[in-house]
Amino acid sequence: MTYCLGVVVDEGLLMVADTRTNAGVDNISCYRKLHILSDAPDRQLHLACSGSLSVSQSVLGHLAGHPGLADASSLFDAAEIVGKVLHDGNRALRDAHAGEKCTGASLLLGGRIGDEAPRLFQLYPEGNFIECKPDLPYLQIGETKYGRPILDRVITRRTPLAAAVKVAFLSFDSAMRSNLSVARPLDLMVLPSGAAEATILRIEQDDVYFNELSRRWSAALVQAAATMPDPWFMDEGRSCPLPNPVSALRAL
Amino acid sequence: MTYCLGVVVDEGLLMVADTRTNAGVDNISCYRKLHILSDAPDRQLHLACSGSLSVSQSVLGHLAGHPGLADASSLFDAAEIVGKVLHDGNRALRDAHAGEKCTGASLLLGGRIGDEAPRLFQLYPEGNFIECKPDLPYLQIGETKYGRPILDRVITRRTPLAAAVKVAFLSFDSAMRSNLSVARPLDLMVLPSGAAEATILRIEQDDVYFNELSRRWSAALVQAAATMPDPWFMDEGRSCPLPNPVSALRAL
Repeated sequence: MTYCLGVVVDEGLLMVADTRTNAGVDNISCYRKLHILSDAPDRQLHLACSGSLSVSQSVLGHLAGHPGLADASSLFDAAEIVGKVLHDGNRALRDAHAGEKCTGASLLLGGRIGDEAPRLFQLYPEGNFIECKPDLPYLQIGETKYGRPILDRVITRRTPLAAAVKVAFLSFDSAMRSNLSVARPLDLMVLPSGAAEATILRIEQDDVYFNELSRRWSAALVQAAATMPDPWFMDEGRSCPLPNPVSALRAL
Repeated sequence: MTYCLGVVVDEGLLMVADTRTNAGVDNISCYRKLHILSDAPDRQLHLACSGSLSVSQSVLGHLAGHPGLADASSLFDAAEIVGKVLHDGNRALRDAHAGEKCTGASLLLGGRIGDEAPRLFQLYPEGNFIECKPDLPYLQIGETKYGRPILDRVITRRTPLAAAVKVAFLSFDSAMRSNLSVARPLDLMVLPSGAAEATILRIEQDDVYFNELSRRWSAALVQAAATMPDPWFMDEGRSCPLPNPVSALRAL
């Protein structure tokens, strides 16, 4: 498994991907999942891959030097090209499995062509895709569930880009803490609106900022939980239910 | 889908289950998933069900008045009986599907027989089972992932029972907020160590305590996220990456 996240806020776009691949828990490896298709000032194309590593690598191989990507006049046009290549790669794998269940690849495509504001697309294994829109300013692929509650509560289109990066890291911290199939190093791409170039960096296992964020976040959650009111039906002093609570409830 | 959670702490046992069943999103119903098999003072047996509703109901039907449950001298013995009935129910469904993929049922069995401390078992569709142990003081079935990060961070065997109920509710709040297949009403069972009877109550959609907890928890998370430090590589004032961060990083 893996976890990839893209967020679009007013101030720009960010994408994060982990690097863990696994075929069972006894065959774990580290592969980059966040790739640069183009980093020219007028053509920022970034791809995050989840699912079959062979399909992802096949897609990257077929996209390398693909003339359509250099000619595409919008990220939507680029997504159609990437979707076609992804469809072909997944279909080839499915045909080779001859009807047996197999897991293809899913993708996030983010970036900008020309004067566009940064955009983000999620491409399904069949090659069709959706674009990230303001009502839900993020898209996820892979092991998405552990890291979703914090996104649903905190991120909106108006979240500052720096805060969005921070919350994206918190989302990954939750996924990595509860599931072995998501792990550091993380790769991060940040493309501010109007910026000519993207920031790309890797968060290693010993990253001081990430480790401090993780430590503080755990402490903050424990502290926040402690300040929540205990259930009214539990006796505060003895930490056990009130006498005859069922009868008491029935009487309400 | 559904979500069921059992927690064993030093002060006792709690179990929570939602009530949503769905066959697709256009066929949603409300069914109780947390059932009392026995509530005698010396024989507390509580069952939470996830997965196929037909198998769960078949299991409950076969367990009703089952002589083995009245004779079992420990919760382990009861789990073996329940496991056998579950195995048979799932096998019948699988046979009826004749090799096609089908989803059986999984169970949590919690309670106490005689002078035992409260115990908790998770029963897999095949009928084999594991017991909850102090290193990981909870077990989950169903839609487990959204609600797991808060459990992993906050609950230990020494968490007071009232606080464990509260954190269990927070776990359900996260699952319900991010996934339609988990929904209120919730059913709660609390069995304090040494108590003769369990507390059983239902948390409805308009439950004042739960709604206040949910509201405060969201606010606390947003607040906690706001107090976390922004990434060092994002320019604080302008909320965009530092000038030439990639080059700067390469120079490190």
